[in-house]
Amino acid sequence: MNKDQNILIIGAGLCGSLLALRMAQRGYTVTLVEKRPDLRKQLQDAGRSINLALSDRGLKGLRLAGVEEAAKKLCIPMLGRMIHDKEGNTFLSKYSGRENEYINSISRPGLNMLLLDEAEKMPNVEIIFNKGCKSVDLESASATFKDYTTGEDVTFQGDIVLGTDGAGSVVRKSMFNHKKFLFSFSQEWLTHGYKEITIPAADGGGYRTTMNALHIWPRGEDMLIALPNLDGSFTVTLFLPYANSDYCFDNLTTPEMVTEYFSKEYPDAIALMPNLVTEFFENPTGPLGTIKCSPWNCYGKTLLLGDAAHAIVPFYGQGMNASFEDVVVFNEVLDTLENESTDWKAVFHAYEEARKKDTDAIADLAVDNFHEMKEHTASTLFQKKRKLETAFEAEFPQEYYSKYSLVTFNESITYSEALKKGRAQDKAILNLIADGKLTEEMSLREKLTMTQKETEAILHDDAIAFG
Amino acid sequence: MNKDQNILIIGAGLCGSLLALRMAQRGYTVTLVEKRPDLRKQLQDAGRSINLALSDRGLKGLRLAGVEEAAKKLCIPMLGRMIHDKEGNTFLSKYSGRENEYINSISRPGLNMLLLDEAEKMPNVEIIFNKGCKSVDLESASATFKDYTTGEDVTFQGDIVLGTDGAGSVVRKSMFNHKKFLFSFSQEWLTHGYKEITIPAADGGGYRTTMNALHIWPRGEDMLIALPNLDGSFTVTLFLPYANSDYCFDNLTTPEMVTEYFSKEYPDAIALMPNLVTEFFENPTGPLGTIKCSPWNCYGKTLLLGDAAHAIVPFYGQGMNASFEDVVVFNEVLDTLENESTDWKAVFHAYEEARKKDTDAIADLAVDNFHEMKEHTASTLFQKKRKLETAFEAEFPQEYYSKYSLVTFNESITYSEALKKGRAQDKAILNLIADGKLTEEMSLREKLTMTQKETEAILHDDAIAFG
Repeated sequence: MNKDQNILIIGAGLCGSLLALRMAQRGYTVTLVEKRPDLRKQLQDAGRSINLALSDRGLKGLRLAGVEEAAKKLCIPMLGRMIHDKEGNTFLSKYSGRENEYINSISRPGLNMLLLDEAEKMPNVEIIFNKGCKSVDLESASATFKDYTTGEDVTFQGDIVLGTDGAGSVVRKSMFNHKKFLFSFSQEWLTHGYKEITIPAADGGGYRTTMNALHIWPRGEDMLIALPNLDGSFTVTLFLPYANSDYCFDNLTTPEMVTEYFSKEYPDAIALMPNLVTEFFENPTGPLGTIKCSPWNCYGKTLLLGDAAHAIVPFYGQGMNASFEDVVVFNEVLDTLENESTDWKAVFHAYEEARKKDTDAIADLAVDNFHEMKEHTASTLFQKKRKLETAFEAEFPQEYYSKYSLVTFNESITYSEALKKGRAQDKAILNLIADGKLTEEMSLREKLTMTQKETEAILHDDAIAFG
Repeated sequence: MNKDQNILIIGAGLCGSLLALRMAQRGYTVTLVEKRPDLRKQLQDAGRSINLALSDRGLKGLRLAGVEEAAKKLCIPMLGRMIHDKEGNTFLSKYSGRENEYINSISRPGLNMLLLDEAEKMPNVEIIFNKGCKSVDLESASATFKDYTTGEDVTFQGDIVLGTDGAGSVVRKSMFNHKKFLFSFSQEWLTHGYKEITIPAADGGGYRTTMNALHIWPRGEDMLIALPNLDGSFTVTLFLPYANSDYCFDNLTTPEMVTEYFSKEYPDAIALMPNLVTEFFENPTGPLGTIKCSPWNCYGKTLLLGDAAHAIVPFYGQGMNASFEDVVVFNEVLDTLENESTDWKAVFHAYEEARKKDTDAIADLAVDNFHEMKEHTASTLFQKKRKLETAFEAEFPQEYYSKYSLVTFNESITYSEALKKGRAQDKAILNLIADGKLTEEMSLREKLTMTQKETEAILHDDAIAFG
C-alpha cells in the first residue's frame, strides 16, 4: 500500500481519534474532522455519558497505540458490582473470582482529550473542529462539511474516508440513501430510555459511597447505576421505561413525582443526590438503541468503524471497548494486507469479514443483558446461577469463565465465541439447577464437571442443527 | 366504534383490496387509493411474481370475506415438490403424508382483479387509481398523492389511514422519517436476487411438464422453481447470487454465458424455455429482502398491514398468506373491541400486540428455509431427516406435523408457535440421526416416540433458559 495517501477520518470521538493516531503511526497522512468544538478548549455535553467502563479489549487498543499507561492514570478500578437493595443494604459482587479481573471507570472527555493530544503530536495528523459532515460522495471519497464558524460549506477530498461519526453517523446515512447497492440496516430501540444525574463529591472532598465499585440499584424494570469520577463525584444513570409503567419517563413530569419515585425505590441514593430534581428536568432523556448495518464499505472508498457501524446498548459496558477493538482488528488486517500490492477494497472486505460477526455478537449480548438484569432481581433461579458461577470462578479460576468474564476479560477470544460458549453455559446451569440435578451432596468440583459436560452437549447439539 | 367513518386505505394490491372489502363488509366507508393504473384495464408488471402459492392461512382470509370459492376457481393445486436433478431425473416429494394438504398456484393479477371486483361491488367502497402516495401526515390521517394523470398533488383525509402499500411502503417511510417517536426498523437483504422466466404452454395447448406440482431444480447456491399458470404456461423463478460465485448475476452478462449456465445446470428446463435469453435480459433482477418495523401504528391514526409492515423472502411461499392472515387477525381484534366505546389507538395496539410476534416468526422461518434449501442439496443428514419426516407424516398423519406442515397447513396454530415447535423438532431429528440414536432395528413408531420425547426435552430446556 502506498503510504503517501490522505486518510479522511470523519468524527474525532473516541474511536476516530484512536484510529487517527494509529493510522498516523502506520505512516499515513490523516485529516481528522469533527463537528463539535475542540473539547480541550470548551467543555460540552453535560448529562451525556460522562464516564464509561474501560476493560481488557479497550485497553488492548490503547496499548497498540502506546497510550495504555497514560489512559490508566485516568482510570478508577471497579472491582465488582455494589448491589443496593430497597432498604439501602449493600452487597459487593466481584466481577470475577480471579485477581486482576476488574473494569475501570474512565472519563469520556478525559480519554478523548488524551487521544486528541497524542494524535496532534504526530506530524502527519491534522485535526479540524467545528465542521459537521453533511454528506459523503461515496464513489469519490470526498465529503462536504458545514463550517459552523463561517456557515459555509467546504469539501475535503481523501484517498479514502473512514467514518467514525458515531451512532447517528452521517457517513452511514449517505450509504443508506445511496440506493445503488443493497444496504442492510437495522435500528432497534428498547422500551427504556436513560438519564444522567450526579452524586457530587463529599463536602471537603472524597467519595460519598464506595469508590472502587460499579453501583447498581436493580429494581426489575427500572435500574440505577453509578460510576465513580476522579473528582470524587459519581455519574448516575437511570434506566426507566418511557411508558406503560407505574413510574416511567412519560409520567415523571413534576418535581413531586420524581422525588416520590426516587424516595420509594432508591432511598439510599436520593440522599446522595442533592441536585436530583434540577438535573432530572435539565438533562436530556436518551434512547437506547442497537444499530447494525452491512456492508460497512462501498467502492473501496469508504468504511464505517465504531458506533457508526455498530451502535450497541450499554448493558455490557462494551461500547467503547468494541470500538477500540475495531482499531485492533483493522490494524491486524493492514498488517496482513498492506505490503501486498493490494487496494483498499480488499482491506475493507477483509476487515468486515473478520469483524462483523463479533460486533453483531456484542450487540446481541448487550440486549440479552438488559433482559437478564431484570430477571436477576425477579428470579431466584437466576440468582442461584450467579452464586454458583461466582463459586466456580473463585475455586477454579483457570477452568471456569462466566459469560461476563468471557466477554469482558478474555480478549483473546472473540465476542462471537464468547456469545456461543457463554449462552451454552448459561443454558446448562439454568437447566441443571431447575431440574434439580445439582444436589446438595455434590462437591463443587462435581458440579463443575456436570456443568462442563452439559455445556459441551448443548454446543454439540447446536452445531449439528445450526452448523 | 362509530361506523360513520372514512377509512383511507393506501395501496390496492392483494392485502389492501381484501382489507377494503372486509372493512366495507363491516360497515365502514372505504376509500382505496392505488398508484398504478387499474390492472383490470391495463396489464402490468411483466416479469414480476406473476403467480404465488396460496395455502390455508390465505384461504382463511378469503373465506372471511366470502371469496374463497371464487378464488379457488383460479387455483391450480400443487401436491408436492417435483425435484429435478442435474441429469433431468425427477422425483415428486409430496407436501404432506396427509390427504388434502397441498398448496395452490394462483395468478397474482387474477386474484387481485377478483378482490377489486368484489370490493367495487360494495356501495361503501370507492377505488381510485393512478394516484401515488407521496407522504402521510401521521397526526391528522391525511395523505398527499401525486395524480399521474394530471400531474397535480391531491390530499385525501381519512378518519384513519391503513397503509397496505407493500414492501416499499411510503406510509412506512413517513413513519421512519417522522422522528417524533422511536421507530425500530430493519431491512435485511440476502446475497441472492431473483429473475422470472417463462415456460410457455405447449404447442396446441397443455402443459410442457407436470401441472400439479411446484417444480424445483435445487443446485445448492442456485435454484430454479416453476409454478403452473391456468393458460398452460409456467412462471419460472431463478434464484442466484449477485456476486462472488462461478455463475452470478454480475457475470451472466452475455447470451452465451446465460445459455452455458442453464445448459449445464438445468438441461431439462432450458429445453422448455424458448425465450430464455430474451427474457433474461429484458426482465428485471429483483432483490430478496426482509423488512420488519415497530410500532406499526402511530397516534391512533395510521396503521401498517401486509408487506408494508413485514416484507418477507419467498422461501416459504407465505408472503401473501401472511398478509391475508393480517386481515383475519385485524378482523378478530375489531370483533372484540369494536363494540366497546373504544378508539382506534386501542384497536391498533391490540392488533400489533396479537400479530407482531407471528410476522417476525414467518420472516425468520422464510430466511431459515433459504439456507435449508441449500443444505438439502449438500447434506445427506438433511436428506435423511426429510425422508424420515415424510414417513412419519404418511404413517402417523394425526401425530406428526413437520415444520413445513405446521406453517403451511395448520392455520389454527400461529407462525410463532410453528417456529418454536418446528425448530425444536428439526433439531431433535437432526441430532438423533447424527448421533446414531435412530437404529435400523427400531420401528417407525419407536422412532416417532423418541423424536417426540427429544423435542419435548428441547422445548423444556429452551423454556427454562429463554423463558
